[in-house]
Amino acid sequence: MSLIEDLNWRHATKAYLPEKKVSEENLTKILEATRLAPTSSGLQQFRVIVVEDKELRKKLAIGSLNPECMVEASCVLVFAAWDEYTPERIDAIYDRTTEERNLPKGRFDSYTDKLKEMYAKQPKEEHFIHAAKQSYIGLGMALAQAAELKIDSTPAEGFDNKLVDTVLGLPEKGLKSVCLLYVGYSDKERDWLATMKKVRNPMDVFTIRM
Amino acid sequence: MSLIEDLNWRHATKAYLPEKKVSEENLTKILEATRLAPTSSGLQQFRVIVVEDKELRKKLAIGSLNPECMVEASCVLVFAAWDEYTPERIDAIYDRTTEERNLPKGRFDSYTDKLKEMYAKQPKEEHFIHAAKQSYIGLGMALAQAAELKIDSTPAEGFDNKLVDTVLGLPEKGLKSVCLLYVGYSDKERDWLATMKKVRNPMDVFTIRM
Repeated sequence: MSLIEDLNWRHATKAYLPEKKVSEENLTKILEATRLAPTSSGLQQFRVIVVEDKELRKKLAIGSLNPECMVEASCVLVFAAWDEYTPERIDAIYDRTTEERNLPKGRFDSYTDKLKEMYAKQPKEEHFIHAAKQSYIGLGMALAQAAELKIDSTPAEGFDNKLVDTVLGLPEKGLKSVCLLYVGYSDKERDWLATMKKVRNPMDVFTIRM
Repeated sequence: MSLIEDLNWRHATKAYLPEKKVSEENLTKILEATRLAPTSSGLQQFRVIVVEDKELRKKLAIGSLNPECMVEASCVLVFAAWDEYTPERIDAIYDRTTEERNLPKGRFDSYTDKLKEMYAKQPKEEHFIHAAKQSYIGLGMALAQAAELKIDSTPAEGFDNKLVDTVLGLPEKGLKSVCLLYVGYSDKERDWLATMKKVRNPMDVFTIRM
């Protein structure tokens, strides 16, 4: 199936079969597609926390819009972005890049110096907003990969960010939660959206040609 | 090819063949995958401006980080998000949804009333930030679709947003520019990134299992 067929196949699943697990092989594929997502300046300024533990998920579900999905899906992917841009974080990925490409150390110094200078001028809140945006590219890839594998999923923003951050210990990791993706298998009897027509603005409303 | 193979194939193209055009059929597929991207509350709070006109692109290139790509790529997709959430904009897509699903008019009123109430409490700046994030899901789908078709592309944030908004008349459309995607065919001789190894954090750094 093509990407377009996969995207037409998927929908935001509203109820999951609690006993049906996504295989480790398929979960790895979803994470791999997400890992390959491009990000601004190649900084990969977000991480994915894979939560399978049910007790932990019950804690995350408090204040969420879909508490049943949080607990009944096969697992929950928490997209979490850097809380700030620091010289060390910028260097870490560029040091890796020069090493893996067998380039002389410091090859990207003039570029990373500019990045560091630019971010140093911005308030930390803007750093997080910018980093959070990148994680949505990864969310897109995870959604597309799940659909390719005919695994159901639900992207979600309706949750208590502060609670999720605390429960998962994200501040200690320099991260803040952005969005979630529930993955698993739809319980068609309770998933009221499963049979509904997908609705989008038509192409001539969605696009403007110039 | 699978999505993972497509994502490994793609790279942020640094130079394009100015004479090689993406076919209308393939451009439509890229836009269709983007149109199918899910968005928060299904509001589809972004649009894609397809800029093919070279003179217009020369104007957009001023202050951009990749002015040659802006002009030499086959076309430029400008992702632009709603500048604010209004009751009318929220109603427009839900009216469409009830109509296309043959549901009674007002079927989603209790839900959209909550949305309207929530957004009314937020400053307009937060509206745009939230809408802008959704457009990155669409950017992800456009990137993935281009890669499936073996069309090169470059996601870009390095441009003069205010200038782009003005040149494209976005304020009059209630939109603000977010990010760009150049699409076309790599000029391998000038595209220095084409032969470089793709570098990402390894899976055990990128993901945290709980």
